[in-house]
This record gives sequence, structure tokens and C-alpha cells, in this order.
Amino acid sequence: MAKKAVVLLSGGLDSAVTLFYAINKGYECFALTFDYGQRHLKEIAGAKRIAALAKAHFEAVSLKFPWKGSSLTDKQMILPVKRTIREIRSGIPSTYVPARNSIFLSIAASYAEAIGASKVFIGAHSEDSSGYPDCRKGYLEKFAEAMRLGTKAGTEGRLLVEFPRIDKTKSGIIKLGGLLGVPFEFTGSCYRGGVKPCGECDSCILRAKGFKEAGIKDPHFGLNI
Amino acid sequence: MAKKAVVLLSGGLDSAVTLFYAINKGYECFALTFDYGQRHLKEIAGAKRIAALAKAHFEAVSLKFPWKGSSLTDKQMILPVKRTIREIRSGIPSTYVPARNSIFLSIAASYAEAIGASKVFIGAHSEDSSGYPDCRKGYLEKFAEAMRLGTKAGTEGRLLVEFPRIDKTKSGIIKLGGLLGVPFEFTGSCYRGGVKPCGECDSCILRAKGFKEAGIKDPHFGLNI
Repeated sequence: MAKKAVVLLSGGLDSAVTLFYAINKGYECFALTFDYGQRHLKEIAGAKRIAALAKAHFEAVSLKFPWKGSSLTDKQMILPVKRTIREIRSGIPSTYVPARNSIFLSIAASYAEAIGASKVFIGAHSEDSSGYPDCRKGYLEKFAEAMRLGTKAGTEGRLLVEFPRIDKTKSGIIKLGGLLGVPFEFTGSCYRGGVKPCGECDSCILRAKGFKEAGIKDPHFGLNI
Repeated sequence: MAKKAVVLLSGGLDSAVTLFYAINKGYECFALTFDYGQRHLKEIAGAKRIAALAKAHFEAVSLKFPWKGSSLTDKQMILPVKRTIREIRSGIPSTYVPARNSIFLSIAASYAEAIGASKVFIGAHSEDSSGYPDCRKGYLEKFAEAMRLGTKAGTEGRLLVEFPRIDKTKSGIIKLGGLLGVPFEFTGSCYRGGVKPCGECDSCILRAKGFKEAGIKDPHFGLNI
């Protein structure tokens, strides 16, 4: 019987590569995605398709909170666009969603305990990312430790939270994805969530930079700015 | 303007005392409760009433996951009853809900960030509790540290997770509640969630022990076993 793993799958690039990485490591994977009122809700359909191609189980959980606090969920707020890499790296952007990865990881740990999975994988990385504090290594290490102490499976040594791509660059992740056969054409990262990537939001800009540095053409809707 | 705090409020005894404690400390409190498919759903109505009496804001969030993994949420599982204190303390019981406090605390941190609250309070204590790993001090310290690193407000020194009752006994918490005027009659802890407390589940047994040791009569439906 294969070891089980819960993999956070947003429908974006990094989590898709992490799913294929986990499958390559021999895990029976349970992809978990969330509808949290994000602008780019279409990523959920992408996540479902990616999970199917990866032959992973797929679960989508709906989280509806009466508060927002992010330009990614609050359409009254302005989405930052056309920023330089330097500007993107200058601080925590308004697209930061309060405690998002903590919520996702906690629910993933709950799912993992319930189904007897021994790992929770998250594809976060801090290089070439948007500066979100919940994608940083120090936070993830602390959170993983909290899960080791605060879950039954964790205290019994049967559950670990892992972030295998944390030290990688976006281009490195894309290269690995290329080797693992990740269907990049179905991964979408654009914050605007339109039919085609806008090419202007931080996520589009970081993705384009990553593909360029990796020397790979981005097949997603022909975007390769 | 009063400092704001989000307080996890289950409708049970410990969290009610913690809410009154936070109000006594001068916080404008935002009580947060969850419908997570627990057997004792009636505690939500109790939480709402307690919040109203405390003059706190009140928010109930619904969490529906397709997995269970606990006798508190899975009615196919048997609820442990008529156990001695020694038996209750013998390990992590089947009423443990996978990663429950991590999920609740993460969502509370998200709420706190969105409304600009500087504290998240949880009424967990490890003495005279059910042995849940997510009520232990070591876990809570680690989780609080993760929130300090993984939230925007935390990294800016504007958000702390606190567990002011962690080193207290149940009877000590009840005594404090008496001093603070907590309406014990509306706090309910019975896992069965019937009209009257069953008096047999771990929660009823620990509550009765606490009131007995505190030398206070439990006014909740006349229960004082």
C-alpha cells in the first residue's frame, strides 16, 4: 500500500510541481484546494484538471469568512499591477491573504490525520515569491513543529509537514516541473483570473521571469512575456 | 478606542471565562465560534448568548469538511462515557478532533488581521483537560510563534496569540469565572449536546469535578454531580 500524502494544490505552478514531486516520490496523493473567495476562482478548475492528470485524489473545500483584508479577495481594493521585480520585493503586498497558509495547512493536517496520511506537502518557496510571510522558511519550520506537537498523529511520529521547494527559485521549480512532466498549460497563476493571464499582476510577472530564466516556453495560453 | 481582541468561544466553560477575562482586561472583544459538525451543535447558541451577555461582537463560521476522524463529529463512532479521571487522563481520546485548535486559531488570526485586532485569545488549559495535544502549552507556544512569523500583523509586532489559562486547573478557571460574573448557566460542555447534560461524557465529568473542587454549585441545568 502506498504511503499517503495530502498536497496543497492551488492550481498554480509551484503547487502543481509539488504534487508531481510527491507522486514521483511514491506517495498516493490527496490534492486539496480551497475556494476562499479569491479573484482567480478559475484556479480551482485548473487544480482539478491537474490532479486528474496526476492521478491524484482531489478535494475542494469552501471557506467563507465574513472578513477579507486582502486585494486578492476584496474587489473594492486595487490589485497592484505593472510592478518591477524590485517593487514586488519591497514588502508584503496587498495581495497577502491574512493567515492563508496557516488555515490551509491546518485543514490539510486535519485531512491527513483523518485519512492516515503521513505527509502534508506545501509548494511554498521564498525566492522569487511575492514576499508573503507565510511562504517563508522560518514560519514553515515553526508551523511544522506546531503540527508535530499539536496533532495526535504528529505526537505519535506519523505526520510531518514538508515544504520541499522552499529553498528553490521559481526557475528551478519550473525546470523540475519540466522533468516531471507537469502540464504547465493547465497551471494558472494570474490574480485577475480572466480567460487569459493579464501579464501585469505580480504573479504573472514572477511566472514570466521564472520561465524566461528556466529557458522554457510557457505554454499557458501562449503567455511568455 | 479600545484595543481589539478575537476570542475563541466554544460555548463551553473555559472559553466563556476567557472572554470575560479579555473584556475585564479592557479589550473590545470579537467572539468567534465554529460549526464544524460537532455533536453538541447547541453550544453555538450558547456561545451567541454568552457573547451577547458579555457585550462582545459575535461571529459564527461554518466549516464543512468531507472527512471526520473523531467521535465528536462522526456519529458512527462511539462516544466514550462513564470513564474515571484516571481513564480520561490515560491518553488522547477518540473525541480529539484532528487539528481543531490549529484550524480555529489560524482562522482567528486571519480575522484579527482583517479587523486590526492585536490579540487572539484561546481558553485552553492542560490541567484537568481531555488530553488533547492541541491544548498543551508546548504546542500553543509553537503555534503562537508561527503566527508571529507567518502573518503580516505578527511580523510587524501587532498580533499575538495568547492562552492566559494554560497553567490553570478547571477549578481555578471556574473560580475566576465566578469573580468575573460569567453566566455559567449558559455555558454547556456536554459532548452529547442533548437538552440536559448527560453527566457521563468526559466533558461532563471534568466539569463536575471542577465545580466540586471550586466549591461552587453548577447552575447549568442543575447539573452538579
